[in-house]
Amino acid sequence: MSTGKTIRAGLIIIGNEILSGRTLDKNTQYIASKLGEHGITLAEVRIIPDIQDKIVTTIHALQDEMDYILTTGGLGPTHDDITVDCIAAAFDVPVEVNPEAFERLLKHYGSEEEFTPARQRMARIPQGAALIDNPVSTAPGFHVGKVFAMAGVPRIMQAMLDNVLTMVEGGDIKESRTVGCALPESQIAETLGDLQNAYSDIDIGSYPFFHAGNVGVSVVLRSTNIPALDEATAKLITALETLGAQPQQID
Amino acid sequence: MSTGKTIRAGLIIIGNEILSGRTLDKNTQYIASKLGEHGITLAEVRIIPDIQDKIVTTIHALQDEMDYILTTGGLGPTHDDITVDCIAAAFDVPVEVNPEAFERLLKHYGSEEEFTPARQRMARIPQGAALIDNPVSTAPGFHVGKVFAMAGVPRIMQAMLDNVLTMVEGGDIKESRTVGCALPESQIAETLGDLQNAYSDIDIGSYPFFHAGNVGVSVVLRSTNIPALDEATAKLITALETLGAQPQQID
Repeated sequence: MSTGKTIRAGLIIIGNEILSGRTLDKNTQYIASKLGEHGITLAEVRIIPDIQDKIVTTIHALQDEMDYILTTGGLGPTHDDITVDCIAAAFDVPVEVNPEAFERLLKHYGSEEEFTPARQRMARIPQGAALIDNPVSTAPGFHVGKVFAMAGVPRIMQAMLDNVLTMVEGGDIKESRTVGCALPESQIAETLGDLQNAYSDIDIGSYPFFHAGNVGVSVVLRSTNIPALDEATAKLITALETLGAQPQQID
Repeated sequence: MSTGKTIRAGLIIIGNEILSGRTLDKNTQYIASKLGEHGITLAEVRIIPDIQDKIVTTIHALQDEMDYILTTGGLGPTHDDITVDCIAAAFDVPVEVNPEAFERLLKHYGSEEEFTPARQRMARIPQGAALIDNPVSTAPGFHVGKVFAMAGVPRIMQAMLDNVLTMVEGGDIKESRTVGCALPESQIAETLGDLQNAYSDIDIGSYPFFHAGNVGVSVVLRSTNIPALDEATAKLITALETLGAQPQQID
């Protein structure tokens, strides 16, 4: 059932390790897919360094444009984990120890001796924020305003994201149809352009591939308007057959 | 030899296919590493959709802060390839057919009949732009102002990037040292904080890992000041040995 509602999210990846090339970012793809399943469009991603000014200005920049802002990274116990302080600064609120987070972490570490000052840092959240549960390693994320702050370690982020998705409102779900064909992109460009002009509420993307000496194109159609999507897909297949492009619907 | 020069680049990934979760972005890691080898810091990445306004405002937003702006994606022959027009709009110049690109593409396709209007689109660049050679599939990228526009297909982008790196000025090269240890992050946090305070021109990052039931941390030190980097690395190893963290320099 279409509600005509578009929900947009921005993702801020706080990570020097991505910008240095040390680490391949796989969180974006995972988050994009999960948001999509909940009818939330990932509208922009910004990968930025662990620098307070940059984090604050990036949150402010996305604030008006997005319904939700997700962040990953910088929630751990070390000196380079500054996300809590930066998000508090962005909202102009103090940071405080959250009693619930403190209790959970104390229980997790088993004794006051083991629950060192560094570990106690992970019980700090911006004033007024709510916790995001972390079933993997206890130290919570948090939610304040439009912002949901998650860990950067993929399996912790994934567990937190499951919880975030219970806290946000989804919109209409975009479905996609993929049609592969055996002609180069430039030979089907006019057909795709005509189809796009006829269906303005469908995103039509074309992605060339090269393998085993063959060139071809995957055409991806995406929309929340499912009847239009199926109609356009059928028209595309017919038009590509006429061109001799041997189209095949892949999914 | 240190010149004290920091060169900063921003990367704009124009790609609905990344934001939808369909495609895993591997270009960021490749570009980050290559820029690093040339003494250029990748200072921010923005992944944005194929929407003209968004592309133009993103170029303008990075213009002042960055020495160079690299873009990937949107250079092909289809309706969703709008990068040329957007970058021209960002610089407020018209788009024109580049005679050199036109000749190369005509030769590549072999005849005027094969060089269809869709393919001729790939000879268009913003007025005043210079070509970036594409040894893989001929259709060039281009360079105008601080902006270097490259293809999104990884092997084409990689070939173009080799050419871009001959067109830009590099700065001091950051080296990195990585030290692994067998204690959780929270137990070495104070040591790392003290080291960071003592060496302000070194970026010290800590990255927890979990494998085969063991927890540990990789500590990465990065700097253009190589003597300081080696001194700090030696101090870190000594301090971690004192903690019983069994440090090992990995690279």
